[in-house]
Amino acid sequence: MDLNSILRQYEEIKAHQRNLMMSDLSMSLSNLASSCLELLETYEVLNLSSQVPDKNYFSWVSENGRKKSRPINAALFENLTSAAEKKDAFFSALQNNDFANISAHDITRGCYVTAISFCAVIDLLKERDQKTPGTFFEYLIGHCYARKLGMDPRDRVDVLNLGDTTSLPTDFIFDLGLNRPKFHLPVKTSTRERVIQVWAHQRVLDGVYGTGRFWGTLVALAETKLDITRNIVTDICLPDQWKLYQLFIAQMKRIYYLDLPQKYSDLNNFFPKIPVKEFGEFFHEVDDLNSF
Amino acid sequence: MDLNSILRQYEEIKAHQRNLMMSDLSMSLSNLASSCLELLETYEVLNLSSQVPDKNYFSWVSENGRKKSRPINAALFENLTSAAEKKDAFFSALQNNDFANISAHDITRGCYVTAISFCAVIDLLKERDQKTPGTFFEYLIGHCYARKLGMDPRDRVDVLNLGDTTSLPTDFIFDLGLNRPKFHLPVKTSTRERVIQVWAHQRVLDGVYGTGRFWGTLVALAETKLDITRNIVTDICLPDQWKLYQLFIAQMKRIYYLDLPQKYSDLNNFFPKIPVKEFGEFFHEVDDLNSF
Repeated sequence: MDLNSILRQYEEIKAHQRNLMMSDLSMSLSNLASSCLELLETYEVLNLSSQVPDKNYFSWVSENGRKKSRPINAALFENLTSAAEKKDAFFSALQNNDFANISAHDITRGCYVTAISFCAVIDLLKERDQKTPGTFFEYLIGHCYARKLGMDPRDRVDVLNLGDTTSLPTDFIFDLGLNRPKFHLPVKTSTRERVIQVWAHQRVLDGVYGTGRFWGTLVALAETKLDITRNIVTDICLPDQWKLYQLFIAQMKRIYYLDLPQKYSDLNNFFPKIPVKEFGEFFHEVDDLNSF
Repeated sequence: MDLNSILRQYEEIKAHQRNLMMSDLSMSLSNLASSCLELLETYEVLNLSSQVPDKNYFSWVSENGRKKSRPINAALFENLTSAAEKKDAFFSALQNNDFANISAHDITRGCYVTAISFCAVIDLLKERDQKTPGTFFEYLIGHCYARKLGMDPRDRVDVLNLGDTTSLPTDFIFDLGLNRPKFHLPVKTSTRERVIQVWAHQRVLDGVYGTGRFWGTLVALAETKLDITRNIVTDICLPDQWKLYQLFIAQMKRIYYLDLPQKYSDLNNFFPKIPVKEFGEFFHEVDDLNSF
């Protein structure tokens, strides 16, 4: 297994960006994740010094130690064998669109393994490439929503009230049809200072179509940062900024994480609360839109 | 004149980031611009192929042709002699805080020469450094506002209604005092897709303090982009997106440019209009806040 073969698999997946609902895509993504895990098996594991309370992280390092992958959450990944098992169970559920027998946490873990393995491969084998992991993560999460909701997304919303026809380029939009909400799905590997865009887009959607018609659900991978010289992992969270955005820009319906930071999880206890959950919860709670 | 001496002058200016109103800073900035012009004199000028209607651009290129500066607007810069003259007239007005005898367009040109010369030096002599030109441009524009308004800015606004004391990090804020507006001043060398942040911050300020209390005035340098292999200049403008932001996120009071793109200038003719002007206009129109 080498980088080129992994990038080839990735390009094949990208070719289906207009058919994210396709069940075959589950198998392609699962195979890509297997290839990544196979490649990562050949790298050394370095345990990192974690400054994130109650969480441990490791990194894969290239032979000469020159390159390190982003931090991997040890509890979510565990080891290559259990990672592969969680990943397989997740894609099997996704392909069949049947999540009755898989826990929210196991969905989160299977999806985390898939996302983080691909990101780690790119970290180790490409130079300063943030775009490929970001785009891959969009397809992965877009496919998850498309399978669960049974429809392909749109990524552009017509804005009709400007006199001329203008389009607002947004993140994925899933339109559940008459009398039901539309999901507005921004996807980010990490949020940092750019996250205000998510609330601002939601604000435009609320303004154009009326508040409550689009349900904003941000899906993010992690907020960890690796100090590569000292091998220290921290997580960068700005919960006070999020409170301001939620109070004064727009209301996001959910924030989902694969590696959920405690400081954001704490926003569930703030009033008015921001519902921040692990990603797997989506697959169960979306079944009952009335209590969503 | 060399890069290190220019960076030394820049570091001295940075040391005064808390005293932007200081009149000595006008002279330091003027001297820095002179040093940049002196250094640029040693580089070759390459005329670029402009796809921006009615505007011509050139670039300075390093000896081996390996590096090119960002595009320079030929009408605003003219040549090194007139550039230096415009720059001197501008800083003389700024140091004395007397703009009665300098036209808005000459203010714009003097400021443009200063900003673009420093950016060009960094383009030619540093590797992929976007941060230094951006930070320099913030100080330059912050100093312009501070001189004209006769006060130092704040760059953080207390948000008091969250129960605890939280701060919203924003761009510069100039507080004119009781019964007068506060200027919210974001500064960007170019806007591109990140500009939605500007409207989103304005929205938070409107929400926390009440609409109309903060006047948002974005100052931007240019929107040109150079295709470095084909030597073609284009400008990237998204006026339809701006209309959405202005209609549905918040109202910006002014958008000022040093090199004003026609597509944004056209927004003055849109209803409801977005007032987009050349930067020099600020120094005259702010004298009458009632008609601002």
